[in-house]
Amino acid sequence: MDWNLINLDADSATPLYLQLCSSLTEAIKTGKLEPGDQLPSERKLAGLLAISRTTAVNAYEELEARGLVRSYVGRGTFISARPDRLGAQFAWRGKVSPLIQRHLGPDIRALLASNKPQMISFSAGQPAYEYFPVERFLAVTESRLRSQPRDTLGFLPAEGHPYLRECIATREGVRHEEVMIVAGTQQALDLIARCLIYPQDRVVMDWPGYLGAIQSFQFSGAVLSGWDMTLADLDELEDSLIKHRPKLLYLNPSFQNPTACTLSLETRQGIIDLARKYRTPIVEDEAYRDLYFATEPPPSLFELEGSGLVLYIRSLSKTFAPGLRLGYIVADEAIIDQLALVKAQGDLFTPGLSQLALADLLTNGVYDNYLKLLRLKHQERARVMEASLQEAFPEGLSWQKSQGGLYIWAQLHHLESGELLAEATKAGVSFMPGSSFFFEPGGKRALRLCYSGTEPEAIRSGVERLKRAYNQALGMSGFSL
Amino acid sequence: MDWNLINLDADSATPLYLQLCSSLTEAIKTGKLEPGDQLPSERKLAGLLAISRTTAVNAYEELEARGLVRSYVGRGTFISARPDRLGAQFAWRGKVSPLIQRHLGPDIRALLASNKPQMISFSAGQPAYEYFPVERFLAVTESRLRSQPRDTLGFLPAEGHPYLRECIATREGVRHEEVMIVAGTQQALDLIARCLIYPQDRVVMDWPGYLGAIQSFQFSGAVLSGWDMTLADLDELEDSLIKHRPKLLYLNPSFQNPTACTLSLETRQGIIDLARKYRTPIVEDEAYRDLYFATEPPPSLFELEGSGLVLYIRSLSKTFAPGLRLGYIVADEAIIDQLALVKAQGDLFTPGLSQLALADLLTNGVYDNYLKLLRLKHQERARVMEASLQEAFPEGLSWQKSQGGLYIWAQLHHLESGELLAEATKAGVSFMPGSSFFFEPGGKRALRLCYSGTEPEAIRSGVERLKRAYNQALGMSGFSL
Repeated sequence: MDWNLINLDADSATPLYLQLCSSLTEAIKTGKLEPGDQLPSERKLAGLLAISRTTAVNAYEELEARGLVRSYVGRGTFISARPDRLGAQFAWRGKVSPLIQRHLGPDIRALLASNKPQMISFSAGQPAYEYFPVERFLAVTESRLRSQPRDTLGFLPAEGHPYLRECIATREGVRHEEVMIVAGTQQALDLIARCLIYPQDRVVMDWPGYLGAIQSFQFSGAVLSGWDMTLADLDELEDSLIKHRPKLLYLNPSFQNPTACTLSLETRQGIIDLARKYRTPIVEDEAYRDLYFATEPPPSLFELEGSGLVLYIRSLSKTFAPGLRLGYIVADEAIIDQLALVKAQGDLFTPGLSQLALADLLTNGVYDNYLKLLRLKHQERARVMEASLQEAFPEGLSWQKSQGGLYIWAQLHHLESGELLAEATKAGVSFMPGSSFFFEPGGKRALRLCYSGTEPEAIRSGVERLKRAYNQALGMSGFSL
Repeated sequence: MDWNLINLDADSATPLYLQLCSSLTEAIKTGKLEPGDQLPSERKLAGLLAISRTTAVNAYEELEARGLVRSYVGRGTFISARPDRLGAQFAWRGKVSPLIQRHLGPDIRALLASNKPQMISFSAGQPAYEYFPVERFLAVTESRLRSQPRDTLGFLPAEGHPYLRECIATREGVRHEEVMIVAGTQQALDLIARCLIYPQDRVVMDWPGYLGAIQSFQFSGAVLSGWDMTLADLDELEDSLIKHRPKLLYLNPSFQNPTACTLSLETRQGIIDLARKYRTPIVEDEAYRDLYFATEPPPSLFELEGSGLVLYIRSLSKTFAPGLRLGYIVADEAIIDQLALVKAQGDLFTPGLSQLALADLLTNGVYDNYLKLLRLKHQERARVMEASLQEAFPEGLSWQKSQGGLYIWAQLHHLESGELLAEATKAGVSFMPGSSFFFEPGGKRALRLCYSGTEPEAIRSGVERLKRAYNQALGMSGFSL
């Protein structure tokens, strides 16, 4: 904010403090002042603008009454809202925490809202849930609800139903005390961030990396540093651990979101050696590891090292169904204990009926058969998308062949993905622009395309729509080959 | 912490910094230093104890290596963990945010875990869900899952399924944009606190008040001030609004948790006048208002004033079933918009299947019939508990007759409720001690008994167990009449 640009006219009929007020409102509206920005003290502002201190005080009071700034005793005055963004009724203006406006972007909400019949969505990461075992799920649901009202309709422990914890502990080869049930990976990340991050803590994470993880860590006050796992340079990681002394390291080692990369066994072992050497705990998000096509990824960091150094997040949204909101965390028992305090305070517990239904399908083999089917269907869909992209974009777009997971990470040669997205939305197809996965500017030419949630015929139509949007955007950008 | 109590022996074979380290570890273990407490700077400590600055630096470094303190550049050194409370493996020690240890007590988790077959629980607030319409619920669940895989298994908007939002908007007489679906009241409180509270904001709330609300506000950094709604003194409320200029006012006006009080229409109107006068938004938690026995409570603050001043939380845990984790918020559209950002970041969205099943039962009258039945059953249970208490405690315990809601708030005359609880747990009956609902010391002789979740015969047995525990505790306390 350049304070020299504020022109005040002492001869005007409008009082100086109201002129100042209008100038500052305009600066907030146009984004020159952002929510969370601190304003100069009244004394300093008076000096900067050669006005009386009373004029400055009156201007700030008026802005506060309009809900645009908020003063905190001993801390100063901060921009609290952007008038056009938050058209709340009077009493609510300026009441929203500046942390929201600083850290929570609209991307996740937009992604959730993209699941509409008329839109072909390559944006949300969804499995081929048309193959979900509906009848088997209904059968166990009915049986559990009829026979166990207390466990399905009553309160449950924050850390999850004991039976599901035990099922998962058996599958993972750990004790049930090391398992906690959550309402999906996003909740796992949110609980972990709230439990472990104190403002100004450093987190080293995938760069690009999962949008939800970026926001969870930042919303809890973390300062992020990136490690590019497509390069997988262990020296760079060591430099970062030395330089930043991070509170924790967040990694998504198999079919990473968004790049679809998988870390080799050697790299995984190297990461563990570094984490040991610098006593840095790892949060390992293995949402996609079960969704390989031909070859299973190398063992997880958790399998290699255990809960002493690794906290392990597993999604069931990607392998079961996103709409059921289920996932789990495996970690040191003392950390599970603390996470359960945050979970209890956040939403008490995860619904019992879906926990027990999942436990039954894990036990009777239905889940595993469904997972096998998903692998086949996803591979088929990946190949259809790759072939369609190849045909539609003989040049102008490049990507790696998918080996598993849900995504193709592609690079545009002549356009930015934001320009393409604007046209794609009009054409009825959506994807995630690359920049959403970068916490510093980056990824402007990248896009993440989810193939798994769309049937082959619709994938072909979606790619055609994308091609039309591409031609449109290219025409508008004035690019010619 | 009295630093004069630290004795260091310069002649000992143990280096001074290790002696200091042991003394500080002991102080942390015994609670003289609490997680979150700031330690003096190394320079200041050296002065206090007449040691060299190097000794102080070495001691702090050793404590940090042991995971007991954590230093932040520019802010100083803080106690980060209590060694006996957090027996984590090495890499995790001292990693938990001090906010957890400062603000999240074990009471909610203990309450959730009290739902066990062998225990008669008067602690958790549960409706008579034995009467839950299981067959009707299964029928709509089956039908929705079979016919709408996208809406039940796929992603949904963070603010809730449009159909359920519309149903609720119609019932509440608002627009669907003003409605947001959440996973229960506790999540509503957590989202509101994260969305609106900035550290050091003041909140004026019921005192005693709902434990989950206390923790949610404090965990987001709020400073709480209490208003005793059993006295309902509007002058006291006005003084508090003038003195504290709170960010918001949190109230639970009907069959309040824990006191079971209901505010009169005059008091409600007086509160609204004050909120208008001091431009203080109200968060109104009406979890219990539909659960009256004979007479409906006065209109809610929301009905009286609307979303311009009131954010309205409705629980479905208390009127439907706690295990399904459903509730909703009605608020100014701009605030719903911000809350949805926090919800998306917290757990993406609430499961679609339970949202749609609820919508169907709201529409076809099953929910309302069930609610009518709950009112009758709860009244019957309240009367059974009151009669049993009357018989078991002809003196020594007093309470008000219940008019609705789920609780009896009782006062012990000769014992503290903590003493009674210790014996009650052994005898196989649980309740919530009054002190859990006070954010400053208070309520030591009070207890909250939930009657609604227990069948009449078990209520009688539970009160008998309580009486045995009472006699036991009274004997131990040495009290004689």
